[in-house]
Amino acid sequence: MSKRQILLLSSSRLAGFDYLEHAKEQIEGVLKPKQVKTVLFVPYALKNYDSYTKTVSDALSKWGYKVEGIHEHSDPVKAVKSSEAVFIGGGNTFVLIKTLYEKNLIETIRERVLEDHIPYIGSSAGTNVATISIHTTNDMPVTYPPSFDALKLVPFNINPHYLETDPNTKHRGETRDERIGEFVDYHKISVLGLREGTAVFVDGDKTSLVGPFPAKLFKGTGETEELPPGSDLTFLC
Amino acid sequence: MSKRQILLLSSSRLAGFDYLEHAKEQIEGVLKPKQVKTVLFVPYALKNYDSYTKTVSDALSKWGYKVEGIHEHSDPVKAVKSSEAVFIGGGNTFVLIKTLYEKNLIETIRERVLEDHIPYIGSSAGTNVATISIHTTNDMPVTYPPSFDALKLVPFNINPHYLETDPNTKHRGETRDERIGEFVDYHKISVLGLREGTAVFVDGDKTSLVGPFPAKLFKGTGETEELPPGSDLTFLC
Repeated sequence: MSKRQILLLSSSRLAGFDYLEHAKEQIEGVLKPKQVKTVLFVPYALKNYDSYTKTVSDALSKWGYKVEGIHEHSDPVKAVKSSEAVFIGGGNTFVLIKTLYEKNLIETIRERVLEDHIPYIGSSAGTNVATISIHTTNDMPVTYPPSFDALKLVPFNINPHYLETDPNTKHRGETRDERIGEFVDYHKISVLGLREGTAVFVDGDKTSLVGPFPAKLFKGTGETEELPPGSDLTFLC
Repeated sequence: MSKRQILLLSSSRLAGFDYLEHAKEQIEGVLKPKQVKTVLFVPYALKNYDSYTKTVSDALSKWGYKVEGIHEHSDPVKAVKSSEAVFIGGGNTFVLIKTLYEKNLIETIRERVLEDHIPYIGSSAGTNVATISIHTTNDMPVTYPPSFDALKLVPFNINPHYLETDPNTKHRGETRDERIGEFVDYHKISVLGLREGTAVFVDGDKTSLVGPFPAKLFKGTGETEELPPGSDLTFLC
């Protein structure tokens, strides 16, 4: 029986809330059962590691958690091996996955989460890298990573910051749904369109959609389905 | 003295016009001086090569041009070598560049355009692949290409379908400007944000912005500048 504790947030910011504030209950829900005191934060998706870590620390310290930046450790692999919980923040998914490969962190994080069951929190790019692959990121491919394969903590893909395109737009660029459709057509893998303010919570053997909005599931078969808030997503795992 | 004839369209469609109709004058401007009769069309960015080629053929045949799909030739490299003009259409940039590499077309197309001066037309993904790299595509990375390096027909990058983000949006995903800014920050290379309905026209030694709208230049230094319609872009080449 798996005891994975994985929280995959669509976004760290939601209109009307302070940074991560909308996800307080969800974050505590994944950290409290494991009695986590210190969270290892991975700021690789943005450029300024110190200021990014401070932003996350300012949010989580209010709720009683200590935050350490992985870059403050001389050996990042060792830091993950001795961590109580890992939080990978958003930014550019290509920069993030490339750095995770360069620092040999893919296998180590995977083992800690899937075998040792330390809690994993991801937001935005940190959610993309937790899935099968980064193929369904919205980010610009600003750097060339050695692979699009990701941590594979869950056996499906996620599109964070999911939103429908305004039906009245005159813009002729592809819509988000068309983009996700291209991926599904190519790979026949399910993609969960995760709206801002929502998250996927893997609590041991049960996986659910958390947050106040529905999610749109793009099935590998090409069909789509709106899943209401609170939906049981265990069938995807 | 270079006699390159290169037309890089932001999009093949513009609201209120038939397919490619908004670009009729620009397309004829690049094909007529070389007395092109037959255009070799590269439909690799979409899935159905036949129907895509027919769409382009239907548009260009009205103006007196014959269109052949590269996939109708048994040897695509040979087809490019004997072509009068090459048109690479839009779709998914990652699928397109991967296919160009797989079919060994990168060097051949480059030589034909830069050395033999056959006209090149690109739209959307076909414009992305004509620049230094595909780093500034808007497309979802649905497949992993062997490189992000592109045809390098022009020495800068382009963001097709460029648009400003609605300032009133509550969505917290990154804006287009933020995404392009990430690339510039990483590579210090200029990116031209090319709005739908506009194009870059390289006519020998002179490069201009064509079409009715301004373009936004993101300079390698981090500064930005709006360039009015008709701007001389030779300084970028």
